[in-house]
Amino acid sequence: MIIVLKPNTKKEDIEHVKEKLKEKDFKPMPFEGDERTVIHVIGDVRDDSPDEFKSIDCVENVIRILKPYKLASKEHHSQKTIIKIGDVVIGNGDFTVIAGPDSVETEEQIIESAKIMKANGVKIMRASAFKPRTSPYSFQGLGIEGLKLLRKAGDEVGILVETEVMDVRDVPIAAEYADILRVGARNMQNFDLLKEMGKVKCPIILKRGMSATIKEFLMAAEYIIASGNRNVILCERGIRTFETAYRNTLDLEAVAILKQETHLPVIVDPSHASGKRELVIPLSKASAAVGADGIIVEVHPEPEKALCDGAQSLYPEQLTQLIKEIKPICKAVGRKL
Amino acid sequence: MIIVLKPNTKKEDIEHVKEKLKEKDFKPMPFEGDERTVIHVIGDVRDDSPDEFKSIDCVENVIRILKPYKLASKEHHSQKTIIKIGDVVIGNGDFTVIAGPDSVETEEQIIESAKIMKANGVKIMRASAFKPRTSPYSFQGLGIEGLKLLRKAGDEVGILVETEVMDVRDVPIAAEYADILRVGARNMQNFDLLKEMGKVKCPIILKRGMSATIKEFLMAAEYIIASGNRNVILCERGIRTFETAYRNTLDLEAVAILKQETHLPVIVDPSHASGKRELVIPLSKASAAVGADGIIVEVHPEPEKALCDGAQSLYPEQLTQLIKEIKPICKAVGRKL
Amino acid sequence: MIIVLKPNTKKEDIEHVKEKLKEKDFKPMPFEGDERTVIHVIGDVRDDSPDEFKSIDCVENVIRILKPYKLASKEHHSQKTIIKIGDVVIGNGDFTVIAGPDSVETEEQIIESAKIMKANGVKIMRASAFKPRTSPYSFQGLGIEGLKLLRKAGDEVGILVETEVMDVRDVPIAAEYADILRVGARNMQNFDLLKEMGKVKCPIILKRGMSATIKEFLMAAEYIIASGNRNVILCERGIRTFETAYRNTLDLEAVAILKQETHLPVIVDPSHASGKRELVIPLSKASAAVGADGIIVEVHPEPEKALCDGAQSLYPEQLTQLIKEIKPICKAVGRKL
Amino acid sequence: MIIVLKPNTKKEDIEHVKEKLKEKDFKPMPFEGDERTVIHVIGDVRDDSPDEFKSIDCVENVIRILKPYKLASKEHHSQKTIIKIGDVVIGNGDFTVIAGPDSVETEEQIIESAKIMKANGVKIMRASAFKPRTSPYSFQGLGIEGLKLLRKAGDEVGILVETEVMDVRDVPIAAEYADILRVGARNMQNFDLLKEMGKVKCPIILKRGMSATIKEFLMAAEYIIASGNRNVILCERGIRTFETAYRNTLDLEAVAILKQETHLPVIVDPSHASGKRELVIPLSKASAAVGADGIIVEVHPEPEKALCDGAQSLYPEQLTQLIKEIKPICKAVGRKL
Repeated sequence: MIIVLKPNTKKEDIEHVKEKLKEKDFKPMPFEGDERTVIHVIGDVRDDSPDEFKSIDCVENVIRILKPYKLASKEHHSQKTIIKIGDVVIGNGDFTVIAGPDSVETEEQIIESAKIMKANGVKIMRASAFKPRTSPYSFQGLGIEGLKLLRKAGDEVGILVETEVMDVRDVPIAAEYADILRVGARNMQNFDLLKEMGKVKCPIILKRGMSATIKEFLMAAEYIIASGNRNVILCERGIRTFETAYRNTLDLEAVAILKQETHLPVIVDPSHASGKRELVIPLSKASAAVGADGIIVEVHPEPEKALCDGAQSLYPEQLTQLIKEIKPICKAVGRKL
Repeated sequence: MIIVLKPNTKKEDIEHVKEKLKEKDFKPMPFEGDERTVIHVIGDVRDDSPDEFKSIDCVENVIRILKPYKLASKEHHSQKTIIKIGDVVIGNGDFTVIAGPDSVETEEQIIESAKIMKANGVKIMRASAFKPRTSPYSFQGLGIEGLKLLRKAGDEVGILVETEVMDVRDVPIAAEYADILRVGARNMQNFDLLKEMGKVKCPIILKRGMSATIKEFLMAAEYIIASGNRNVILCERGIRTFETAYRNTLDLEAVAILKQETHLPVIVDPSHASGKRELVIPLSKASAAVGADGIIVEVHPEPEKALCDGAQSLYPEQLTQLIKEIKPICKAVGRKL
Repeated sequence: MIIVLKPNTKKEDIEHVKEKLKEKDFKPMPFEGDERTVIHVIGDVRDDSPDEFKSIDCVENVIRILKPYKLASKEHHSQKTIIKIGDVVIGNGDFTVIAGPDSVETEEQIIESAKIMKANGVKIMRASAFKPRTSPYSFQGLGIEGLKLLRKAGDEVGILVETEVMDVRDVPIAAEYADILRVGARNMQNFDLLKEMGKVKCPIILKRGMSATIKEFLMAAEYIIASGNRNVILCERGIRTFETAYRNTLDLEAVAILKQETHLPVIVDPSHASGKRELVIPLSKASAAVGADGIIVEVHPEPEKALCDGAQSLYPEQLTQLIKEIKPICKAVGRKL
Repeated sequence: MIIVLKPNTKKEDIEHVKEKLKEKDFKPMPFEGDERTVIHVIGDVRDDSPDEFKSIDCVENVIRILKPYKLASKEHHSQKTIIKIGDVVIGNGDFTVIAGPDSVETEEQIIESAKIMKANGVKIMRASAFKPRTSPYSFQGLGIEGLKLLRKAGDEVGILVETEVMDVRDVPIAAEYADILRVGARNMQNFDLLKEMGKVKCPIILKRGMSATIKEFLMAAEYIIASGNRNVILCERGIRTFETAYRNTLDLEAVAILKQETHLPVIVDPSHASGKRELVIPLSKASAAVGADGIIVEVHPEPEKALCDGAQSLYPEQLTQLIKEIKPICKAVGRKL
């Protein structure tokens, strides 16, 4: 950690900062430059404590050298996190396609969906029973009934199922019915939910918040891991910017950086990023090319009848097309689809 | 609602859209222009259903005419929402100063804080017992013990107390101990929490999410109101932008628009927006001038000892200065402090 | 164009808007809904004139149906723009790699650079003689002397050369020495420069402004085309967002949309987007996969000695690696490298 | 400057960085921490040279301690810049209102405008002869003819006149006809224009670019000052964010910071920020309260007839109202209007 003092800081104020540092067991090494005094600080500073020194009036800035995440960092755990669920493996260099409808709507719809996914070689089906909706007047999902239908579809068709949890109180029951749980973008910093996710055993897909920095994203993963669950899959799903031509700006640069920074698998959600089905195939291909471990896409048996997000849902035949087009990209980057 | 079709849409596809609209009891009125066919739609469309029509391939865009919020809208409820708690009134044209430390730390600290606030004429003290922290390794708040200390300080000193709730399971107990509950920026779209907030009787301060649009902000308020609690106070606290010279960009233009759009009181948090105590006074003055109903600021008996956010906490004498400087502004805009 | 009136607009005000519309030769068709009157307007409205109606007090919003660009739009010119310079063709389905150092520094450096590019099969070398620098104290480029060295290198080695122009007064001389001119991101809305670019005959690479919407980007291209030069190549180079882990957020979703919206070729600059050489290869691969017509990357004979942007410049052997890795991706998407 | 090396950097690579630093006359002081080696660098580093060290592979980050601007900085020139034009003084603690129509349209319109401004006590009238327009098909301003009409109006009515210059070639003639020149937001980093602005003698209003950081804004001012003209007035006019409820997000926090960082006067443009006349009065009041030295607002004799930006232009009677409402705020903050 480095502490930059304001210009013309008095001797006694420098001493005060040094005292404060020593109180916290830091070892201060001050440098008096021509225009600024800078205090180099030796000691472990992975938590938020550096920020405390900003509260001293003569401090201009506090600069951290160490990254605030540790468990999620490749620097400390160089071995890749490989996640196994049944015979599916994520993070070992394969390319995983997770696909399914936005929501569980009816028994018929979800079983039909499972069959379509299975027929296309998809091994994990996504579908939400709890729906985060901007409007209180919109369809809020089938709830626990939806979880049960999802499980039923998974069992009947023979496909793993993945679903979102929003409410801490629903974590245990969701973990009972689904194979993978998802933390949605709006809940990426719902810290109590992250802690609950650390207590279950199934893998967690953690979606990046709409305005979360990469650092905050990794800190959210750190919460889950620190609470006991190492099986975290990061999911880039678009960030909020000034552009309005699409729903969110898919940040594939983040994927490239995450692959350098963390040992956790990284997947991409091109459906929620774009909000438009015609962008899903090109963005999926770019995701594979940039180095992602997989994608999660929305596919609905009949998108026009979808109760939510139909505009971004692929038609079943488009899923087939996606798989066909993405295969040679995966091959080009040395991944097995 | 207006549906814009893609160029060169075929007759049968236009018919298909019209059929879909009629199925949902909308009355379509198509216009064939030179370059686009546009379908004007008559009917009530306050929920998210317009988005469903985007799932039809020949639809280029769906434009909503009505605003999606109703209960929070001045258009439908022209009378100001005035919130009374004991002898404090918010939203009646006065200017309310809510102040206090970031967190409840110790009994001594919170009682000392309450005395400082009271001595400066502040009638509501803020302080968090549950802390949303980016890092799992940082101080997470005293929890229920903190709630009790807060209540004790409020009772002993004679000041109302306000605190944040993050976990749905804590809402009932927090409502028991505090006079006003707060939904933090990170939880603005934690819809389950919003619904729980709708079930309690005390007023709710709803902070704008860091990347929430004004529309989404009002929709979050709509959730609380629709769930049964009309006593919502909106709080602008800075949005996330590209600028890094301060923590967040305080959006006072949003305050001006909210005062036009909604009957709910609107307050401003200049402390969290800026992250720097030297900006709090000028931003507080700007907040009063732009038309806000109040401010919520951080003040700590000894900012250098604060366990969280000391850099943005005012010294007690700065609170006195703030009150002194803001008074003539309030007078200039016709508000009583 | 659709004009939405404020709630409870009076009859005479509606008439006033209708009169205004008729004055401008528009044909107004009003609809009185339950909550809003909406005026559907028939007529050509490609310029900014719709905005004028916003100045009328009873107007809540003006919604445009037609896109404001025409010459740049695929809707009006469905045939791809194919750009030929010597034996190089851009926009015909091939994948074009433009590469070179950030700046022309010395004769030796630029000739050495040209040889490296040529040896790697690159047919167009980039290098700036005029440098837009944030600081007036930084290296500002060699100016006209740099243009001459660039031409010399191109001629000696047998490679096309591309360079940036910032000042309208330099357009003619730059067009004399370079084969392709570039409008930098900071000048995307320097309309006088765009007009001058319309007067020269060589192809123009137009970089997207750091905070330009896709619509504004296409309008900037429209300026060049409307001024007489159809040979415009669009270049996505990252947009400014809240993320600070890299320099700019590369917006590959914009590339996917541009390929749908416009007949102009679209290339990507992963070097300036990321600011980090280790991200250039994965982002180049993603650019090819998403459907770009090419990339423009920085390569320097000795990056550590570069006078500008060394951190994002590839080492010569990394260019070889890039070409090697990108080839199978190009093949996978049916493009020839 | 501080250079942070990547974890596990080898001894010889540390030596290499040290050598590089010495070559540039910097004095390196390395610290080997547990997880990172950090090199503290003594020496003057105000230009962009620190960035060069990022090009070395073992360098993780380069952190600057000194701010890159010097002439614009209060740290180096603590005395306020006070700008005098005739009997008008800006930056001495008064509050200056600059007002006028968006554009010079006709002789009648601009003379009528000048009379309205004068009648309201306004001493500087704004109006553009050169118009930066997103669309090439929109009104582009009257050009030099407009400059002449503006001068005529100023002389006849007895009011100072201010106007925008976009093209470097127009700077001399504009300086001949106008009393104050303006660099528009889109040209804030048109460095050749900034240099030309440094060569004239009249004051320059420099508008902040839509996505410019405060640092970049001050560096643009530095360009003008370094080129010879110290009379720079900074103008905050809204930044581009995700919010679409208004045109741009007015950043009054930037005003508060600029008043701390620089000796230059700072004014605010609430008209272009909001794009809506109903927001201009509250935002003007907030600007005065936050500490700005003035505002620049659009007022048109007949907004509905304005050729550009009528929606944000005040009616003449609204200017009177604005002056009336802003006066007590100015008094409250100790400024004379």
